[in-house]
Amino acid sequence: MKIHILLSKTSEWIQGLGPDAEIVLTSRIRTARNLPDYPFPGRATVKQREEILRIVEKTLSGIDLMQGSLFIRLNEVDEADRQFLVERHLISREHAVAGAGAAISISDLEIYSVMINEEDHLRIQVLKSGFQLDEAWDLMNGLDDRMDEKLGYAYHPDWGYLTACPTNVGTGIRASVMLHLPALVMAKQINQVLQAVIKLGLAVRGLYGEGTEAQGNLFQISNQVTLGKTETDIIDNLKKVIRQIIGHEKNAREHLLKNNVKQLEDRIGRSYGLLKNAHIVSSKEAIELLSALRLGVDMGLIRDIERQTINELMVLSQPAHLQKASGHELEPAGRDIARANLIRERLSGNA
Amino acid sequence: MKIHILLSKTSEWIQGLGPDAEIVLTSRIRTARNLPDYPFPGRATVKQREEILRIVEKTLSGIDLMQGSLFIRLNEVDEADRQFLVERHLISREHAVAGAGAAISISDLEIYSVMINEEDHLRIQVLKSGFQLDEAWDLMNGLDDRMDEKLGYAYHPDWGYLTACPTNVGTGIRASVMLHLPALVMAKQINQVLQAVIKLGLAVRGLYGEGTEAQGNLFQISNQVTLGKTETDIIDNLKKVIRQIIGHEKNAREHLLKNNVKQLEDRIGRSYGLLKNAHIVSSKEAIELLSALRLGVDMGLIRDIERQTINELMVLSQPAHLQKASGHELEPAGRDIARANLIRERLSGNA
Repeated sequence: MKIHILLSKTSEWIQGLGPDAEIVLTSRIRTARNLPDYPFPGRATVKQREEILRIVEKTLSGIDLMQGSLFIRLNEVDEADRQFLVERHLISREHAVAGAGAAISISDLEIYSVMINEEDHLRIQVLKSGFQLDEAWDLMNGLDDRMDEKLGYAYHPDWGYLTACPTNVGTGIRASVMLHLPALVMAKQINQVLQAVIKLGLAVRGLYGEGTEAQGNLFQISNQVTLGKTETDIIDNLKKVIRQIIGHEKNAREHLLKNNVKQLEDRIGRSYGLLKNAHIVSSKEAIELLSALRLGVDMGLIRDIERQTINELMVLSQPAHLQKASGHELEPAGRDIARANLIRERLSGNA
Repeated sequence: MKIHILLSKTSEWIQGLGPDAEIVLTSRIRTARNLPDYPFPGRATVKQREEILRIVEKTLSGIDLMQGSLFIRLNEVDEADRQFLVERHLISREHAVAGAGAAISISDLEIYSVMINEEDHLRIQVLKSGFQLDEAWDLMNGLDDRMDEKLGYAYHPDWGYLTACPTNVGTGIRASVMLHLPALVMAKQINQVLQAVIKLGLAVRGLYGEGTEAQGNLFQISNQVTLGKTETDIIDNLKKVIRQIIGHEKNAREHLLKNNVKQLEDRIGRSYGLLKNAHIVSSKEAIELLSALRLGVDMGLIRDIERQTINELMVLSQPAHLQKASGHELEPAGRDIARANLIRERLSGNA
């Protein structure tokens, strides 16, 4: 199973590098694109979707940036594999069940990926570690231009890129940033901050995108509007807001250090102790404890763990990842044990 | 302050040796004795109590078993020191506030101790590690005989030893055993067992004796009746019951190992992790976590900690002990931090 190789590879974002990486996990740009001569996937026949798939696969194989990439037809892999790709933020939940013609192309380090026959013919994604929206946009432009050159995207001079859903028409761009905001949560300032973000026309989501709950103090913030603004305006606006949130989180962390250091050390220490010693851990508990541990590492209170290890555990402790690593299906109770074993071993430096 | 030397000494019982030490912390025999020519302390004048004190002090200084013992007049030490002695199970709460003439003599290793002017003129205690009631009784006899020889206890041919409270008349003996019964608690069988114990005429108490709550799965079981039976009958009866309870606890532990080993490892591991990493720990939480850790050590699931270390921490993490060790008074919040520091350091092998 070729998907398996992703398990032993470290994505670029997991390395936890880039500017403001102590608060910003990832910067992501996603564009929605379509071929001119086919109906959108939701209205296309199976035959048409298969044709689109073949055209795009051929196109990608001729693009330098996608050399050595992994190409996976989603109906050729099983449910667990599709879930694995969702957990890795490479395909959406909708894409996982999209049926005929649905596929994903994933570049080395998972920086570039292209979903084929999701809601649109193409959903192109660039994922970078830390606060690097401009860099992500530059990379996106490079791939997008090369693909446009060969495919000639559906484009209207007045409306911009045509997309299946009107909310994506225009630039077809969604820029988003995954933020870790534990201090704002502890200080009970998070709702105030997020409400301000929403008033500014941005969207706030949980770890797995639209409609998911915020777990582990992780918040994904992205633009809503795609029409009537240039891509640069959209990205600049998002950047400005994110920079402010980073400032608030930093202030909240400093406040904790100054006024509640013992409570902070206690909370972080307890989380670390539980992760290193528990034998049964649910995914919800894991993400919460890892969030506290990450805060400890990012604030310099925990020095024997790398940020990369925590990012890896956040990914590897997810249900489909645990099953993939174990090589067989696991019941929820078995997963909670496998998760605890994985975390204990990694944090003891034995794995 | 001479009491301070107790801090750096390890009592015999703390070593955690003796038969069935994985379940029985201590075996204790206490006798109530009085001098014939003085009213009981509650009715004696200050002058009389001072006389009793001097007589007993002189007597003890001439007894081989009490050579090198620590003699403390309770009105010459402060409240924190008296609390310290209560926490060490060397004086009772009543004795701590008994006023003039109240004193305690403590032998090396704290095996023998004699409370002077508590409810009776003399409360003699022998404390041994593990399940050693016969050995404790032999030691008690040795000291009791020597003291009787010199003091000539108040004794009535029909009623036996005369005591301030009628519940102690007769043999004046209280034999008790401190049991650690976490598996029976986890299996929810503890109430059934303790109710049977009470029906057999025995008393069940918490860690600090009469009227205290059971914390840390520790239960003190002792005889109620002192009159109309010989000392040997009383001790044999208690031994029989304790042996049964030990059997029940062992069965419950085996059952956990066979049927719930993951849950057990999880619980013990989490407790260990919290103890090694928390920065704020209340005394109630400490005793509960130490109980789980002790179970792990006693069942061979935790191998890098000695039982003695846990016994030490149970004693040293108490409020007055923490203050004594720190050299100054500590507010509750400060104690919770000092307690966490002590436990973390001891369990990391740094102290």
